[in-house]
Amino acid sequence: MDDFSPRLKLWVESGGRLVMSDYRVRLLELVGESGSLAHAAEQMGLSYRRAWGKVKELEANLGLALVQSEVGGAGGGHTVLSEEGRALVAAYRRFQERMARELDVAFREEVEGVLGGGTGPPGGAPLP
Amino acid sequence: MDDFSPRLKLWVESGGRLVMSDYRVRLLELVGESGSLAHAAEQMGLSYRRAWGKVKELEANLGLALVQSEVGGAGGGHTVLSEEGRALVAAYRRFQERMARELDVAFREEVEGVLGGGTGPPGGAPLP
Repeated sequence: MDDFSPRLKLWVESGGRLVMSDYRVRLLELVGESGSLAHAAEQMGLSYRRAWGKVKELEANLGLALVQSEVGGAGGGHTVLSEEGRALVAAYRRFQERMARELDVAFREEVEGVLGGGTGPPGGAPLP
Repeated sequence: MDDFSPRLKLWVESGGRLVMSDYRVRLLELVGESGSLAHAAEQMGLSYRRAWGKVKELEANLGLALVQSEVGGAGGGHTVLSEEGRALVAAYRRFQERMARELDVAFREEVEGVLGGGTGPPGGAPLP
């Protein structure tokens, strides 16, 4: 029997331009987890150069300093999230989680009944 | 000053396949408003054939009879929504409206403060 799953994509615009997205926040989050932009870039399938560009673009779009880099040293440089960067990732994750919860509740309460709840015969349950 | 606007896109999958979307429901809604698939197709920039295919695909995906067509007559045929079609459009609209409300509330409550509320100097307000 069909099982219907609602999905959503979130992003943020400013002046009609994309300034923040699930994808970009995921990149930041990976920087925070690994302490390495090179590692975060690799996990996202991006070149280092492109990942760096995306982080700098995000900073410019939001007017926030999101990462702090230290170059050189024995193990090469590393990149960590600034306090603002950590706050932004955490805030965006809370935003995503609230939306995901409402997605499931609203779909179940508003739409699923019309689809026969996914348990009726083909053609759906008769409507009232 | 930057003004940040959250955006969302909604769709429904079944078995990993797209079965319903804002776009497809808009097509159905236009059929309901105009009583004409030709008119609805034109407003969506689709050929009649392609619009018809989308409606039939939606019916197959959902297992519902969404439209009723009558061919011929002086003014050509016309297409109207079935009771199930009207119920589906109304349910999906309620779903979209709930999600749009939560989008604004959750973004304001979770994210906007980190962005300086859009009223601070470039660089954003200092974080606590």
